[in-house]
Amino acid sequence: MTGKLYGLGIGPGDPELITLKALRVLRAVAVIAYPAPEHGDSLARRIVAPHIPEGRVEIAIRMPLVEARFPAQEVYDRAAIELGEHLRAGRDAAVLCEGDPFFYGSFMYLFGRMAESFPVEVVPGVSSLTACAAVLGAPLAARNDILTVVPAPLPEAELYARLKDCEAAAIIKVGRHLDKVRRVLEDLHLSENARYVEHATMANQNVRTLDRVDRDAAPYFSMILLHRRGEAWR
Amino acid sequence: MTGKLYGLGIGPGDPELITLKALRVLRAVAVIAYPAPEHGDSLARRIVAPHIPEGRVEIAIRMPLVEARFPAQEVYDRAAIELGEHLRAGRDAAVLCEGDPFFYGSFMYLFGRMAESFPVEVVPGVSSLTACAAVLGAPLAARNDILTVVPAPLPEAELYARLKDCEAAAIIKVGRHLDKVRRVLEDLHLSENARYVEHATMANQNVRTLDRVDRDAAPYFSMILLHRRGEAWR
Repeated sequence: MTGKLYGLGIGPGDPELITLKALRVLRAVAVIAYPAPEHGDSLARRIVAPHIPEGRVEIAIRMPLVEARFPAQEVYDRAAIELGEHLRAGRDAAVLCEGDPFFYGSFMYLFGRMAESFPVEVVPGVSSLTACAAVLGAPLAARNDILTVVPAPLPEAELYARLKDCEAAAIIKVGRHLDKVRRVLEDLHLSENARYVEHATMANQNVRTLDRVDRDAAPYFSMILLHRRGEAWR
Repeated sequence: MTGKLYGLGIGPGDPELITLKALRVLRAVAVIAYPAPEHGDSLARRIVAPHIPEGRVEIAIRMPLVEARFPAQEVYDRAAIELGEHLRAGRDAAVLCEGDPFFYGSFMYLFGRMAESFPVEVVPGVSSLTACAAVLGAPLAARNDILTVVPAPLPEAELYARLKDCEAAAIIKVGRHLDKVRRVLEDLHLSENARYVEHATMANQNVRTLDRVDRDAAPYFSMILLHRRGEAWR
């Protein structure tokens, strides 16, 4: 019997925002894999650490943070081989995914390598998208709003084109693209309707108006939410 | 001491997709409110029924399903008054929200009425958006994809305009707008890249290609996901 691979959504960071299903799977599998930096701790592992039973095989998928090599395909190749060996030996394995596995998650790189050879199940999680809205205390989208999710690494002209007639938008992966995004929103007179959030639902959570974010301090996993009506910002 | 109002995301339908936090709040509050049809059971209440302790005050927010009166503002006015009385008496209250409260949720109607007068906390939940992607076994969006969420009730020309250069899209609230959406996707040669999902993660879950959906059978809470690359549909 081949084992099953789980893409396990563990939520945006608050350990309490994990689902009962993710918790059950986490406790049941023999092998637990997670993304990690080249050196140091894995945030995903830290989120669920209290729930990991003794004696599990753990696989840290260590990703060099050199932009040019990102995503480092050979890292996923190796992880897929290692996970595949466990699955073939009949052991179930779970890959921890911050937020939701299929919402801009790096799980897709493993999924693409393994889904044709092994049974894969994705357990959806609370995404950073709705976590940020909750933290801001403002509806993300409602009624017949069109909601656009735009990655900040896109070229400035494309950001401009996509945001100029948006109703509600989430600009993700802000990080070092903060100044570019700020320029676009300023040009579109949308800055007042936008809020910046980093580390939503975590202890170091931070919510700011755009003018109060330090340009060198925005982490990769930060987000800007905006709504043209702006009515929700009280 | 005024009580606190929680907008409680309880996930897309599988009772196991509730978070630990939502469960803790659900067990702690004195008052539990939920949307319900004019006659009959509340789906939201059914999802969490095993976790509702004895002796709680329950408020069914019964919504007439007559389209012209939707959303019936007076229903929310009455619910806000009733909830407000409990909060003023120092009792915490939770409003059950399918999916996530701030992702196209009806909670915003209560939030708009109560957030200025009472402490409100939103507990984010697994949204139907990521639940549908998990059920389909296909990434919703990845890398620098732009993801557009489009409500199907919009006019045909607007659907066309928004979808014609989309990369990844979720068309929500399909229901009786199915034929209109199918026409648009056919015109844009995107039908092959789209999948229809209803009741994601529930016992009566249903996934289909667009040509295999009965035009009169799509429920309001159904969704079509598509990706221009289409690579994920295996």
